[in-house]
Amino acid sequence: MDWTVSEQSFEPGRITANGNKYMTGNGYMGFRGVLEEFRKEQLAAVTLAGVYDKSGSQWREPVNAPNGLYTVVSANGCKLSVLETRPLAHTQSLDLRSAIHRRETVFEIGEGERVTLTAERFASMDQLHLLAAKWTLHCTADCRIEMTTGIDGRVWDINGPHLLEQQSGSAGEALLSTAVTGELGLPVAVAELTVFGSAEQAKRVAAVIELDKGTALRHITIEAKAGETYTWWKYAAVYTGLDTEDNPAEGGPDERAVRAVRAAAATGYAGLLETHRRKWEERWSRSDCVIEGDEEAQLALRYSIYQLLIISPTLSERVSIPARGLSGQVYKGAVFWDTEMFMLPFFLHSDPRIARNLMMYRIHTLDGARRKAAEYGYLGAFYAWESQDSGDDACTLFNVNDVFTGRPMRTYFRDKQVHISADVVHGLWQYILFTGDDSILADGGAEVIWECARFFYSYAYYNPVKKRYEILDVTGPDEYHERVNNNAFTSAMVQETLKIALQAAKRLQDKYPAVYNGLAEAYADGPFLDEFTAMLAQLYVPQPDPETLVIEQFDRYLQLEDVSLAELKTRVIHPNEYWGGGNGLATTTGILKQADVVLMLHLFRDSFSREVKRANWEFYEPRTEHGSSLSACIYAMGAADIGLPDWGYPYFMRTATIDLTGESKQYVGDLYIGGTHPAANGGAWMAAVLGYAGLQFDGEAARLQPALPQGWSAVELPVVLRGNSFRLRISREEIAVTAAPDNSEAVSFAGFGGEAVPCPPGAILELAPPSNQRGA
Amino acid sequence: MDWTVSEQSFEPGRITANGNKYMTGNGYMGFRGVLEEFRKEQLAAVTLAGVYDKSGSQWREPVNAPNGLYTVVSANGCKLSVLETRPLAHTQSLDLRSAIHRRETVFEIGEGERVTLTAERFASMDQLHLLAAKWTLHCTADCRIEMTTGIDGRVWDINGPHLLEQQSGSAGEALLSTAVTGELGLPVAVAELTVFGSAEQAKRVAAVIELDKGTALRHITIEAKAGETYTWWKYAAVYTGLDTEDNPAEGGPDERAVRAVRAAAATGYAGLLETHRRKWEERWSRSDCVIEGDEEAQLALRYSIYQLLIISPTLSERVSIPARGLSGQVYKGAVFWDTEMFMLPFFLHSDPRIARNLMMYRIHTLDGARRKAAEYGYLGAFYAWESQDSGDDACTLFNVNDVFTGRPMRTYFRDKQVHISADVVHGLWQYILFTGDDSILADGGAEVIWECARFFYSYAYYNPVKKRYEILDVTGPDEYHERVNNNAFTSAMVQETLKIALQAAKRLQDKYPAVYNGLAEAYADGPFLDEFTAMLAQLYVPQPDPETLVIEQFDRYLQLEDVSLAELKTRVIHPNEYWGGGNGLATTTGILKQADVVLMLHLFRDSFSREVKRANWEFYEPRTEHGSSLSACIYAMGAADIGLPDWGYPYFMRTATIDLTGESKQYVGDLYIGGTHPAANGGAWMAAVLGYAGLQFDGEAARLQPALPQGWSAVELPVVLRGNSFRLRISREEIAVTAAPDNSEAVSFAGFGGEAVPCPPGAILELAPPSNQRGA
Repeated sequence: MDWTVSEQSFEPGRITANGNKYMTGNGYMGFRGVLEEFRKEQLAAVTLAGVYDKSGSQWREPVNAPNGLYTVVSANGCKLSVLETRPLAHTQSLDLRSAIHRRETVFEIGEGERVTLTAERFASMDQLHLLAAKWTLHCTADCRIEMTTGIDGRVWDINGPHLLEQQSGSAGEALLSTAVTGELGLPVAVAELTVFGSAEQAKRVAAVIELDKGTALRHITIEAKAGETYTWWKYAAVYTGLDTEDNPAEGGPDERAVRAVRAAAATGYAGLLETHRRKWEERWSRSDCVIEGDEEAQLALRYSIYQLLIISPTLSERVSIPARGLSGQVYKGAVFWDTEMFMLPFFLHSDPRIARNLMMYRIHTLDGARRKAAEYGYLGAFYAWESQDSGDDACTLFNVNDVFTGRPMRTYFRDKQVHISADVVHGLWQYILFTGDDSILADGGAEVIWECARFFYSYAYYNPVKKRYEILDVTGPDEYHERVNNNAFTSAMVQETLKIALQAAKRLQDKYPAVYNGLAEAYADGPFLDEFTAMLAQLYVPQPDPETLVIEQFDRYLQLEDVSLAELKTRVIHPNEYWGGGNGLATTTGILKQADVVLMLHLFRDSFSREVKRANWEFYEPRTEHGSSLSACIYAMGAADIGLPDWGYPYFMRTATIDLTGESKQYVGDLYIGGTHPAANGGAWMAAVLGYAGLQFDGEAARLQPALPQGWSAVELPVVLRGNSFRLRISREEIAVTAAPDNSEAVSFAGFGGEAVPCPPGAILELAPPSNQRGA
Repeated sequence: MDWTVSEQSFEPGRITANGNKYMTGNGYMGFRGVLEEFRKEQLAAVTLAGVYDKSGSQWREPVNAPNGLYTVVSANGCKLSVLETRPLAHTQSLDLRSAIHRRETVFEIGEGERVTLTAERFASMDQLHLLAAKWTLHCTADCRIEMTTGIDGRVWDINGPHLLEQQSGSAGEALLSTAVTGELGLPVAVAELTVFGSAEQAKRVAAVIELDKGTALRHITIEAKAGETYTWWKYAAVYTGLDTEDNPAEGGPDERAVRAVRAAAATGYAGLLETHRRKWEERWSRSDCVIEGDEEAQLALRYSIYQLLIISPTLSERVSIPARGLSGQVYKGAVFWDTEMFMLPFFLHSDPRIARNLMMYRIHTLDGARRKAAEYGYLGAFYAWESQDSGDDACTLFNVNDVFTGRPMRTYFRDKQVHISADVVHGLWQYILFTGDDSILADGGAEVIWECARFFYSYAYYNPVKKRYEILDVTGPDEYHERVNNNAFTSAMVQETLKIALQAAKRLQDKYPAVYNGLAEAYADGPFLDEFTAMLAQLYVPQPDPETLVIEQFDRYLQLEDVSLAELKTRVIHPNEYWGGGNGLATTTGILKQADVVLMLHLFRDSFSREVKRANWEFYEPRTEHGSSLSACIYAMGAADIGLPDWGYPYFMRTATIDLTGESKQYVGDLYIGGTHPAANGGAWMAAVLGYAGLQFDGEAARLQPALPQGWSAVELPVVLRGNSFRLRISREEIAVTAAPDNSEAVSFAGFGGEAVPCPPGAILELAPPSNQRGA
């Protein structure tokens, strides 16, 4: 129960939502949660990580590969497709523990007679190019089964076509679909092999092959017998030119794909499933978070973690996680600040190798960030708001269409969300604190940090009257208010960037003096450490008002119309109208799109008193629309941080169930923005672990300040800190820390505001709250 | 012919346009060019200069007084009103020389019989509270004339009502209408007296008086005889609480108004007209500009000057000229930069006393400008974008309604057109240069200048990488591009402000050391002269590109879509849609609302080569929409300045005829913006005199660089320079300067690029072009 997501009926209106909800994937590719008979019209898609294409003047976006698992069955001429025949029974389910998608559908064929189809599939976590499926067919009466199965080359594209020169062919038993992408000329190949259950059954099968522009299908006829169960397996493999760059001698994508499906068939489905399961077991062992006492929250949290696991880059340090994961092409498959700010914490605590990949992606895209800074006349590195393979910004200047005029609307996501460079630096430094792995500084990390600091130095202006540096003309997380001055969040992040730039210099000089000297020489003309120091000393970061304790989100925010969210909603004319942009409803009011000051207070929670955090939570919470899926988790954490976990519980559940309910915003203007929400998935984990369990690691000691919601009796989870594994169990009464015996060093833990106590390898530490401290 | 504007028919569609075109006024009040039978529905209005009122939460705007000249006549029950009866003949005319409005209308009453009505009226230039009218009625058959005449208390308001507690009464023969304004409780009184032509005629008149809420009417019956002409005169006087503040002993507005109409009746119409005419003769003698060879241009230019003369504050230094003159309440009766930049030059050259009043108005409103600066967190004085009596900004944050949604649209006129403070300083300094009258510095002018400089010092930011001060986040004259950085016009104006601030210090210290010391002490903590000097040395003002010579209007202007004006017009969806604001059509393109860089090049024309000026004229001219009436004159002048007067001639004519044709923009969004265009009127004069005649006075010498358009053989006009009067005649072949004999000093003149030659009192100077210089 706690590991399965399912539904017991087919509802056409849920096709798109279920495509997201029942996603499978392995970081190399995402396979939308479609049924096997679905095609592009139902948004079937095999979305490839890190493969982008630009068609004409349209938005650049990820490439979807042909679907090698496409299958549609008919019995006695009746299409056994939920799209054409209403089933007698239908279940669709996802086994989160092993990442297996299943469907079972019962169709009536003639009076009282039935055909039952089952299909299960997985994107192998062991062989990342491989998809595998197992089918069964059972009929209560003899019937003629006609099946079409193979590779569906008609791919769903938002801004395609991306696959040009599509060709189909066969190689022995295998089918093959090849194409090249239009912009980069990258070959993409999908091979498929279908294997029948028994030699006897195979004999009864008659196949005709149909090849057409990337689509390669077998038409198979089976004279099925009543009571008999027919079984077949499908193997599909996807390769692109990116996979073959390193070892061209091993053949092109087409050869490899064919080889892969043949090898899979040789191994057999059971064997493939076994290795896949083992990989998943291992991943869950590092990341499962148990909530005692709240089954609903437990499933939602596991589901959130599942979503992160199926899209995380396990192998490549050249891809990161797009804002909609691998659920399609929405948001151009681009990587946003979501990764560093909302997903990275999960990986830092559970799988630092993936965290390193995510940060290495930023190092590899530094040149793109340099190009963007130069384009705007700044120094250093201005990271892309929407980053793809090269790090150049995929974000357009016109990101939303005005629903009233149909015209593209100028927005400032690309130009003004400068905090992205600080977010990257923050992520990098968090990686270093969590892992102790300074090598990333020498591997390009220091350059990233300094280039971002140089960018901010060139972006800042000095106010001669107020004698301070200010960060002007930015858009903070609250994107409804563009081009504001002295946004508290952005300025605090810039301040952190400058501090990190100075600390990174010390570390690098200490550990990698040669690398340091080389870089320092390159920056000799400045701005470099001297300028960073000067700017840090005089940088203006908005502070709490002495009377109200509220931090003004940006200059003159408090002068905006103080309207209630309910009142603002009554002013809406068009359901999809964008509340931001030039004339957006919210822009002239105090209504925020998402957590902004409250996010800042979460990030720098040790720098502010509980009273300040509470005052700001109470001030901004009713003013927040949560128009972004990144917002709710922050309010959940913020409430936990001020000791009021139940205030934030609805926000936690909203975050954790976003892809289960599918009730997120689907349109901005006339732009479809649906898909999965990895940042919210990460945010759910953050709320549970950093918020409710109250875990905080500063690179030296871990502090635990639990604030569990009413229904939760405990949270239990594994964490890795500086390479050492621990199992934590956090309840209101006690915190138990169990150190793995093979840890290399002790890490200190402090619980309930107490002193930090070292927990050496193999030890079990029990921390209790000071008895007089409760209710404080 | 050259002095009369007229039309020979009545067209209902021209009522509003003619209300502007046939305006009369005397600086105290404007009387729209309505016919006598018109009421508020036809936008009849007596608009009072400097009297403002705010009704509820509506926009603050000028107060219209009841119309004391209202009259409607009927014959045998047939209404002799163009609104109800189609006249046989109708003429409406304006005598520009004496500012007399006339109408003559012939109505048919029964078969072949006619009544001819004539009415002439003027707003006395001698007695500024007084309106006077003369009527005649002639009938070709006996008929019963019923006439209603008196005071129409139903005033036209855009955002009224402003007149509360309206009461009517009579005082002997006089009628009286009184009210108080809602916001300030200012009393407003209108008295009226009607006098019949002869004792005999008067006897035949039977009158009944009707009094109702500010309306006071006489119903008069005359048994008119065929062939006889009936004549009557009407006198109306307007007084408000502002007029009685200084001498309360002389009675309240009501008493004074009654006294005034009685005195007027005692003087009689002929006598009043005579003094009015003499005043107008005197004013024209100081301002008429003769164009030889172009009658159309001549009439248009005279008409433009006429418009300036009827609205200029002859007496009060507490009012300036609103952007729509005294033609009603459009633009809130507010004073914009229009005054300093487009009207002041005319007065500086022709009537420096009025120029002083205009600048003293800015001195009197300094506190309002200080309040605005403080409101935004700046030092010094940030003048109102829309200034009324107190200098507080009447400009709202939502100045235009979005035609697509009906919602108010956030615009940044109020917040970001900081150049207004520089425009005020520029005007003040021009006044000092033209008049030599330093006393205005001691009378508050120096404080204005320094407070504006202090404002800019606090508005500016220092760019530590580029090592320069920048003026960020401003809107220049091109209001389609709001919130831009380093707008060339604004930055150049700020630079001039700083220079003037330093020069003003020297002058004041020299001439009024005590005043200087007092002020300098108040500014001892700075920012003051030291800071101004430092900022001036490092202020960034965009300069011509070395290759193209084009000055980029603001940072990244050249990155905007380079679309043609024609193409942009094809994108218009709604005829009244605003091209600026949040999502305006022009905002993301290079299309400008009005001259911006080209205006800067006009103001600082000696600092740039002809090549630079030409390159920018040629670059920006096709990109300018001229959505503001302030634009065309600048392109006319710019073309003259580069020796291509005919390029700009259509712009000159467009400017000079704007209120004759009535073909200006009437709506922005759903906001009515019609009315007269004093800035264009002033711009027509500027184009003729500063552009074509090429006159330029720097406070020491006058230079004349004529560039006459094809049809013009010469321009002749009087000017006053440093208090000395000259008559200039400028042709292509020769410039003749005639100094008045009673001038106090010589002023030097240079013609055709030659040396400056002094022209002593009584002298005639003839300047010829160097023969080899033509065609250069």
